[in-house]
Amino acid sequence: MDTEYRLDLLEARNDILDLISRYGQGFDHQDAELLRSIWREDAVLDLDFFGRFDGIEAIMGAAAQYWQASPFMHHWMANPLISLDLEAGTATAATELDCLCTYVEDGTSHIGGRYLDSFVRDEGGSWLIARRVFEIAFVTPMPDWNPAQGVEAEPLKAGA
Amino acid sequence: MDTEYRLDLLEARNDILDLISRYGQGFDHQDAELLRSIWREDAVLDLDFFGRFDGIEAIMGAAAQYWQASPFMHHWMANPLISLDLEAGTATAATELDCLCTYVEDGTSHIGGRYLDSFVRDEGGSWLIARRVFEIAFVTPMPDWNPAQGVEAEPLKAGA
Amino acid sequence: MDTEYRLDLLEARNDILDLISRYGQGFDHQDAELLRSIWREDAVLDLDFFGRFDGIEAIMGAAAQYWQASPFMHHWMANPLISLDLEAGTATAATELDCLCTYVEDGTSHIGGRYLDSFVRDEGGSWLIARRVFEIAFVTPMPDWNPAQGVEAEPLKAGA
Repeated sequence: MDTEYRLDLLEARNDILDLISRYGQGFDHQDAELLRSIWREDAVLDLDFFGRFDGIEAIMGAAAQYWQASPFMHHWMANPLISLDLEAGTATAATELDCLCTYVEDGTSHIGGRYLDSFVRDEGGSWLIARRVFEIAFVTPMPDWNPAQGVEAEPLKAGA
Repeated sequence: MDTEYRLDLLEARNDILDLISRYGQGFDHQDAELLRSIWREDAVLDLDFFGRFDGIEAIMGAAAQYWQASPFMHHWMANPLISLDLEAGTATAATELDCLCTYVEDGTSHIGGRYLDSFVRDEGGSWLIARRVFEIAFVTPMPDWNPAQGVEAEPLKAGA
Repeated sequence: MDTEYRLDLLEARNDILDLISRYGQGFDHQDAELLRSIWREDAVLDLDFFGRFDGIEAIMGAAAQYWQASPFMHHWMANPLISLDLEAGTATAATELDCLCTYVEDGTSHIGGRYLDSFVRDEGGSWLIARRVFEIAFVTPMPDWNPAQGVEAEPLKAGA
């Protein structure tokens, strides 16, 4: 492989890792601008029984609803495995999730599973998520886990 | 350092991060092919009081037993620190673990600790795990944590 | 961008990821040498209501106190987002934290939040933390989570 190709591969991998992190930080900090920036216009977000959303406007609409229902979220990502096809401008990744969501109505759930992603590189050279599918492993209520028991946690305001 | 050497270092680091992720995903998804692919033939897996296994067949045999005893596992890896010696074709890593295992007989345990790894590069240029030692920090029963309380989690079938 | 510049960027990113991991492993294993090695002399560590520490000696003094108060810590880092300015020799990062601390007096707390970091490159070319600010999301007591319930966990000795 030549130098240019090897650098492209290394940079593409980092760009894709960043998309995965931006999804987590975008959701957890209710950063709509950051969350919006990671998707192709026609992206699909399929969250299993949490819902399936087609297109970036549907995804952002879903995020706004989640932020109302669960103003307190943590998506800790781990163990990313990425496959790249630079010629095709496509990539896939499988990444594990360890997640806590505190719902206004039902309290805190511990959620685990795996994201299976497809990425495309657009004409400008930016990698974007074309499709993200969540495989649920567990959704476990944690009635005794309450962030407000200790330090007064400050749930973010939806849309802030 | 010349370009070739710097690229080799960057790629080797990524290869090693992938081995660490493949261990996690191989175990957690009972993917025997993926799990098998990361070890040198004579690799040692030393899991402290969970057992020590010499050679790839012993490791795979142990995995099959774990999958029967604990059909529900999550190995979330974090904080990897990697040291490389390209000339020698060797490397080491220390990586933290946050883990949940739900045992058929004893319920769920939260397990934490650190993996200390040694890697070698084979003649084909592939990095493999030569030795993985787990330092246990804690193994804590979580009697109130039950994935089946909420959404019906689907434990994987051993060997599937 | 030329090859040299692209390699510099890739290496700087890895160096910064290593600083983030070294903070975690330094704290969790009470490795004073490792923890000391990541800071600029005049670094600031601002841990919100856990305290603010100016300069490397104050930071190391704080670490020694934490190790006495909470001999059992786990800082699992996730979702790093890094911005680099190679010309200026500066960088920033935002990284999520999932943390357990077992305090001698108050038992175990689950702590979550985000680190906001500033880095500088010194004359020797090494990246160091200039400022680390922790944004607390929650500090939640876990009275039923006790590492000593199960396997006898061995809390590290402060300063060992």
